[in-house]
Amino acid sequence: MEETVTADPADLPFDVFSKACPSRGTLEHVTGRWGSLTLGALHEGSFRFNELRRRVDGVSEKMLSQTLHALERDGLVHREAQPTNPPRVDYTLTPLGYEVAERLLGLIHLMEDRMPTVLEARERYDAVRGAR
Amino acid sequence: MEETVTADPADLPFDVFSKACPSRGTLEHVTGRWGSLTLGALHEGSFRFNELRRRVDGVSEKMLSQTLHALERDGLVHREAQPTNPPRVDYTLTPLGYEVAERLLGLIHLMEDRMPTVLEARERYDAVRGAR
Repeated sequence: MEETVTADPADLPFDVFSKACPSRGTLEHVTGRWGSLTLGALHEGSFRFNELRRRVDGVSEKMLSQTLHALERDGLVHREAQPTNPPRVDYTLTPLGYEVAERLLGLIHLMEDRMPTVLEARERYDAVRGAR
Repeated sequence: MEETVTADPADLPFDVFSKACPSRGTLEHVTGRWGSLTLGALHEGSFRFNELRRRVDGVSEKMLSQTLHALERDGLVHREAQPTNPPRVDYTLTPLGYEVAERLLGLIHLMEDRMPTVLEARERYDAVRGAR
């Protein structure tokens, strides 16, 4: 993005390395412990709240609810209340959320794939420094 | 990875969606607030501790030190003490760290690029729900 002299934040270049840039907060919603797993799960399709809670092993109801609100506010997750009785709420990715989830899953799958190397590195590190 | 009957953790399939899987901890080191920015910075080249502190705007000395130790232990960052007087310590990415940083930067650049869309989504959300 080019630099401008206007004050509209949407016209400024965004830089996560700058602590005042709003992109840093969005990156944290996306990569945070529960944000990343929620986006990764929704890449598989539409989920209801309790289905997501089961898929994202270990998340509390409160944390999942906060995570979904932040992702919905950032335009990454779409929340749709179905006009049924009892009411049913479905969560899906927006097109932007899908694009973000694709990149995130690339990273997640790389990490899962390289875990043997990571565990070997930890053993070497702990052997040199003593168990911590 | 194929499933086996041995108990060696390096032979098991890794799954970040399972809360007991060690890959979840490594993903958090990589995507955490300071881990992601540290890996992103080191993708630009070798840094000394204080250079990194300036590049990763807002990080404290303590948090940067903890972040670098976790990334070094996971085999993503290489720490090299130069035999100079005064001693000088350089941080670089390992080949695995570089691979991880590439994926991470893909995600970071996408987020920075899409921030106008994110900010528009936030405005719409807040207009409907009232300022929070």
